[in-house]
Amino acid sequence: MSHFLAELIGTMILIILGDGVVAGVVLNKSKAQNAGWVVITFGWGLAVMVAAYCVGHYSGAYINPAVTVGFAMAGKLPWAEVPGMIVAQMIGAFLGAVVVWLHYLPHWKETNDPEAKLAVFSTIPAIRHTWSNLLSEVIGTFVLVLALLAFGAKGVVFADGLQTLVVALLVVSVGMSLGGTTGYAINPARDLGPRIAHALLPIPGKGSSDWGYAWIPVVGPLVGGVLASWVYLQLFQ
Amino acid sequence: MSHFLAELIGTMILIILGDGVVAGVVLNKSKAQNAGWVVITFGWGLAVMVAAYCVGHYSGAYINPAVTVGFAMAGKLPWAEVPGMIVAQMIGAFLGAVVVWLHYLPHWKETNDPEAKLAVFSTIPAIRHTWSNLLSEVIGTFVLVLALLAFGAKGVVFADGLQTLVVALLVVSVGMSLGGTTGYAINPARDLGPRIAHALLPIPGKGSSDWGYAWIPVVGPLVGGVLASWVYLQLFQ
Amino acid sequence: MSHFLAELIGTMILIILGDGVVAGVVLNKSKAQNAGWVVITFGWGLAVMVAAYCVGHYSGAYINPAVTVGFAMAGKLPWAEVPGMIVAQMIGAFLGAVVVWLHYLPHWKETNDPEAKLAVFSTIPAIRHTWSNLLSEVIGTFVLVLALLAFGAKGVVFADGLQTLVVALLVVSVGMSLGGTTGYAINPARDLGPRIAHALLPIPGKGSSDWGYAWIPVVGPLVGGVLASWVYLQLFQ
Amino acid sequence: MSHFLAELIGTMILIILGDGVVAGVVLNKSKAQNAGWVVITFGWGLAVMVAAYCVGHYSGAYINPAVTVGFAMAGKLPWAEVPGMIVAQMIGAFLGAVVVWLHYLPHWKETNDPEAKLAVFSTIPAIRHTWSNLLSEVIGTFVLVLALLAFGAKGVVFADGLQTLVVALLVVSVGMSLGGTTGYAINPARDLGPRIAHALLPIPGKGSSDWGYAWIPVVGPLVGGVLASWVYLQLFQ
Repeated sequence: MSHFLAELIGTMILIILGDGVVAGVVLNKSKAQNAGWVVITFGWGLAVMVAAYCVGHYSGAYINPAVTVGFAMAGKLPWAEVPGMIVAQMIGAFLGAVVVWLHYLPHWKETNDPEAKLAVFSTIPAIRHTWSNLLSEVIGTFVLVLALLAFGAKGVVFADGLQTLVVALLVVSVGMSLGGTTGYAINPARDLGPRIAHALLPIPGKGSSDWGYAWIPVVGPLVGGVLASWVYLQLFQ
Repeated sequence: MSHFLAELIGTMILIILGDGVVAGVVLNKSKAQNAGWVVITFGWGLAVMVAAYCVGHYSGAYINPAVTVGFAMAGKLPWAEVPGMIVAQMIGAFLGAVVVWLHYLPHWKETNDPEAKLAVFSTIPAIRHTWSNLLSEVIGTFVLVLALLAFGAKGVVFADGLQTLVVALLVVSVGMSLGGTTGYAINPARDLGPRIAHALLPIPGKGSSDWGYAWIPVVGPLVGGVLASWVYLQLFQ
Repeated sequence: MSHFLAELIGTMILIILGDGVVAGVVLNKSKAQNAGWVVITFGWGLAVMVAAYCVGHYSGAYINPAVTVGFAMAGKLPWAEVPGMIVAQMIGAFLGAVVVWLHYLPHWKETNDPEAKLAVFSTIPAIRHTWSNLLSEVIGTFVLVLALLAFGAKGVVFADGLQTLVVALLVVSVGMSLGGTTGYAINPARDLGPRIAHALLPIPGKGSSDWGYAWIPVVGPLVGGVLASWVYLQLFQ
Repeated sequence: MSHFLAELIGTMILIILGDGVVAGVVLNKSKAQNAGWVVITFGWGLAVMVAAYCVGHYSGAYINPAVTVGFAMAGKLPWAEVPGMIVAQMIGAFLGAVVVWLHYLPHWKETNDPEAKLAVFSTIPAIRHTWSNLLSEVIGTFVLVLALLAFGAKGVVFADGLQTLVVALLVVSVGMSLGGTTGYAINPARDLGPRIAHALLPIPGKGSSDWGYAWIPVVGPLVGGVLASWVYLQLFQ
């Protein structure tokens, strides 16, 4: 499988299971409705786990432009790979969101709140405050990417297959601890791809796709990933 | 142990622990009553884990006709094995449901809602909508079987025993993210075997076994498994 | 460390963390109050995990008379070891309960319900029904011991240290799926040792130690363990 | 990376994710608000996991003065290392708390309860009772440090990287089972560093930093760690 296809499929699986868990928790009449933050955070962590075990063997399963850029900056991935991977991640995220829309098809018109419907696709800040929201995305992604780089540092050893499980739990951790403010996009493709799907799909009673906020979960994660890479290169040797 | 007996015992354990967790959460006066979706989804995932560690060494622990057919299509299991395995899975699922009925014996007459009693045995859609329900079962099983095949792809390596734990977490993930619509049968034996038990057992105040819906959690998973196998063969090489 | 001391310390740790989690969830003013079944079941599973990693290297960490007897019957443990181990387990369970009483010392008099106080120490059935309660303990322990024996069957391989983690999750599974009826003693020492502590300790406003029920969580688990061993010997070869 | 820097960064990550999860659960308008004890305990356990995988390779990831002292007493760490490590842990804990303050910046003034704001930084006993609170911290840390020492005892073997995951689950276990009384500091740096941050930072509407209680989560854990080391040396050989 090509790196392009692997990143596309991996990010698609990530969003099917990630946006899927939000849909299950927020959409009306879902059996998982109101299952709470523990299900949201484990759901997203396990979404990363499934995606990474499926395609990690083929492309490394970056499935996140901020991780992709951070690893390229740290010299762990050729820069020439980065643009194609990001395009693949964006397409995969968009397609994953379409699958979630289909999967929960009868639930959209049973749900009145337009914000709940947007929340399935994209993040919405708990308190709208541009610089704080941006900082939250920077910090969350910084911790994510620094840890991912540290897990792969020279001399750190994992039994076969264990590292991916630990990465999944890292994502649960970031969600539980740092997700309360902005809903932890920490991944530009995870937020922008499904937001485009939200804008295009015929969702009954949908509201705004909140494009004014859309740059924050793109720029914040990229800045966080770059900073993490820089700190890693300075300190983790 | 023969493959037949291993699949029978494995599926029986799956249903004892899987239907058991639903019984614990929905039956009146149970100490686990209203424990929520996190317990349902971890309960089913761990049910797969226990079953698979118990009999995986003997038969591979397919314990699911959709997985069995998907793996046969992908060339990972001889077709000659399939019919016997499916019969064993159906018998095991039926027997497991009988054990759950016995285990929670005094709780049936304390529970008034007939739908809660059926829910212990078989899935009930959140919103009754034939094609959407079918599609949900197709998508859920597609993700399950594609991931199972990908975990076993050439070159993917797990430390001894780790893969089964990851499979358990995959089932938690599918439940959390895609279970909200139909209750994720994603396994024809898991749904049909216990439904037959529901029809036959003397459960006080039980209602209909909802046979009109019974074909969806059989056909949907089989279609999902076949599609996953086809996608795997096309792309994961 | 001798087998006797290892089983004593292991069972003591099991009860400190196991009865501890119940105390946290049921005692008034505890920060964990009403944390629910997910915390109870993970708490007990992780209690087994901690105990087993601490003393498994010295004695095998049976920490349960039903498991001890089941393994002796299956030929995995010399019968001569059994009586001493069970005595050690009983002493350890009693001492563990004393530690929990001390740990939560100011919370006892803040809690009015005598049944909540007994529940910290020993199991109480959800619906009092002798034969059904006994059957529940038989079934729960049967699944536990059969799985433990199957995990150790010839040819089943785990990466170093992984089996103990899987055993912990097995205990979570049995609790989630089969614990709703009697509170899953599935271990005579776990129930009887702390019940003796409950009877002896000066707990403010404590009620009956419910001795009429005390034989069920002793006899049920032993029967379940013996049956599991018999089934294992017949089928898992 | 030096041991000093590794302990500083490790403890900083611990507090970012650990105080972070408390902030998420207790601060007003957070998406994780009221997510409950299961999220608090998994959040802290995973915080230890992330910190330990990041810096364990460089310094052993003690990230806790009570563990540091306990391991030095047990002969597993040179005493000459201890003072520097504790200073690093204190600085890291302080800096981690500052990051949490920044991360949740708009949430402080939305939260009225000054005790909730202090709880993000430092532990507060459920029932204020000096000797019982001290005893709770002793017992919690005793179990933690004894288990950590036992996991590293001669002859105990883990697949590469697995031990750190088990340590994370040990911390979840101690939190679930023994955290209900004092909020389980079980780490002097985890409590004192963020308490200093609470005192210094301009948090809107903050109340007292509760200095009268501050010695308990310092002295209790140190006593617990020393006792665990002593018991380990006496019995685990």
